[in-house]
Amino acid sequence: MARSPSRPLAVSLGDPAGIGPEVVAKCWDNRSGCDLPVFVAIGDPRSLAHVWDGPVELIEDPRQADCVFDHALPLLQIAATDCDLPGRPTVTGAHCSLDALEIAVGLSRSGSAAGTVTGPVSKEQLYSIGFVHPGQTEFVAERCGVSRGNVAMMLVGPTLRTVPVTTHVPVADVPASLSAALIEARGRTALRGLQRNFGIPEPTLAVSGLNPHAGEGGMLGREEIELIEPAIAALRAEGWRVTGPHPADTMFHAAARARYDAALCMYHDQALIPLKALHFEEGVNVTLGLPIVRTAPDHGTAFDIAGQDRADPRPMAAAIQMAAFCAANRELVE
Amino acid sequence: MARSPSRPLAVSLGDPAGIGPEVVAKCWDNRSGCDLPVFVAIGDPRSLAHVWDGPVELIEDPRQADCVFDHALPLLQIAATDCDLPGRPTVTGAHCSLDALEIAVGLSRSGSAAGTVTGPVSKEQLYSIGFVHPGQTEFVAERCGVSRGNVAMMLVGPTLRTVPVTTHVPVADVPASLSAALIEARGRTALRGLQRNFGIPEPTLAVSGLNPHAGEGGMLGREEIELIEPAIAALRAEGWRVTGPHPADTMFHAAARARYDAALCMYHDQALIPLKALHFEEGVNVTLGLPIVRTAPDHGTAFDIAGQDRADPRPMAAAIQMAAFCAANRELVE
Repeated sequence: MARSPSRPLAVSLGDPAGIGPEVVAKCWDNRSGCDLPVFVAIGDPRSLAHVWDGPVELIEDPRQADCVFDHALPLLQIAATDCDLPGRPTVTGAHCSLDALEIAVGLSRSGSAAGTVTGPVSKEQLYSIGFVHPGQTEFVAERCGVSRGNVAMMLVGPTLRTVPVTTHVPVADVPASLSAALIEARGRTALRGLQRNFGIPEPTLAVSGLNPHAGEGGMLGREEIELIEPAIAALRAEGWRVTGPHPADTMFHAAARARYDAALCMYHDQALIPLKALHFEEGVNVTLGLPIVRTAPDHGTAFDIAGQDRADPRPMAAAIQMAAFCAANRELVE
Repeated sequence: MARSPSRPLAVSLGDPAGIGPEVVAKCWDNRSGCDLPVFVAIGDPRSLAHVWDGPVELIEDPRQADCVFDHALPLLQIAATDCDLPGRPTVTGAHCSLDALEIAVGLSRSGSAAGTVTGPVSKEQLYSIGFVHPGQTEFVAERCGVSRGNVAMMLVGPTLRTVPVTTHVPVADVPASLSAALIEARGRTALRGLQRNFGIPEPTLAVSGLNPHAGEGGMLGREEIELIEPAIAALRAEGWRVTGPHPADTMFHAAARARYDAALCMYHDQALIPLKALHFEEGVNVTLGLPIVRTAPDHGTAFDIAGQDRADPRPMAAAIQMAAFCAANRELVE
């Protein structure tokens, strides 16, 4: 994690009424202790003032961040007409969070920033202003000109990386949402992402089964035989190192984790249960398949504790560190 | 774990061609280091002789185990007409494993043994001799006169206990297999089991959701609202401490685990992924709802490594310790 990219990271504060401003400010406070690279915050300065009395310096160009970062939090200001109070989200705040996200992505796209770290937004508020994406990931993909099908969410902790094939899908709809083509596409995105973002030249991907005991030879479900095995075979035929389908319950202990660089999981909780059981405070969401680096802490706006100095900044610090790590790896290979 | 029951435990060796005999023998070797209580092994002495050159002493009554255990592994002999070699399961071996299981349960039912620990069997071999149960658990339940619906499998590790509501069911069939009545029954069995086997007078049960984010208020599935919440309400109305439905991915980190005595999970992997991610070598299967204590190591026959001195005895040692712990707790309250 010691490598730093040569340009600053762009960190959107997320919803101004959420815990985003607080955790970003706390990260700046601990910039030395956490060994954080230079970053520029993007959002409403009043959302910081509500929860933090540290120094903020408004800048207009990310190139100024380098000179400011030592003595103040560099901020690219989003002008909000009305300011949210912590814990009280509004439509204005949703616009502000969306503008910050758009600017952060634009700076990374243009090369002014080394990558984007996104603070938590309120989907409910965003939907009320006409946002049509399932989440920030899909919005970022669209802004980068990448189809949703070619991006993947990777959850990263110190000893485990997981990629869910399906995400926010009810369990009853998971089997019908899976196809060999989708599993193969997600697997390929995961493998390329391991090369590009993590600097692993020949990554190994372990693919889970869907059913208990990976279907027990068809006795407990046939998705392993009909969908997962063909996807694995297709990836292997391209020369990738891919193992599985593995029974999901025996994939995540220390000895098993040592055998692969990432686990491709069939559904949300299969990927997130082990990641959060092992690495709750350090889990980072890394979007793979984009032309830019994008990470996010794996938590929401937490409106219920916003403004109370109770938010844990460790996930945001881990997301900033991870973005720097991925950006530095990309600078090495590109 | 220091308490020991006043009678020996009955430990069936499982399939003679599997790793059961080896891990039981290794447990006796380490009886002091692991602080194991007196137990009597039940099975074919030749299956031990194939993999172990330690002392075995045949006994005819479990009461003799106490005098033998210090200097030899006490064994109740099952006469097999033909003996299996390690890694080469046969029909004869399946009969032997079933006889051992039946005797172990009988000794516990009669009070001659403090409880039963079962070595791993081959379901495939058992099915070939007419065994009609999904596993040893259901066989033990039947021999104890308890209906399958009223027993529950609890997976126990040092910092986590989980109980799956459904077990060996394909993911596609899980939603239809769930009902409020089943969730309620499993929850009640779990809570009573925590009182009886673990000595927790007022246990707290945390109930998981089925879907990502516990259904997100019905947006990602309605089982939480229609099945799980009514089951929780019914248990609370009886005075039990029950929380949830919780998003499954945020239930298993250390701070979350500290808030409950057991987690009731909706399906196999939801219960087993966190347990094995955290406690792979120490996971014990405890059957709740029986008149007797029954535990098992959470692994199979592992025919592929049998007879090679490679089997890890820690899960079997944990299962023996856990049976002793549960039996001692029962002796206290009964």
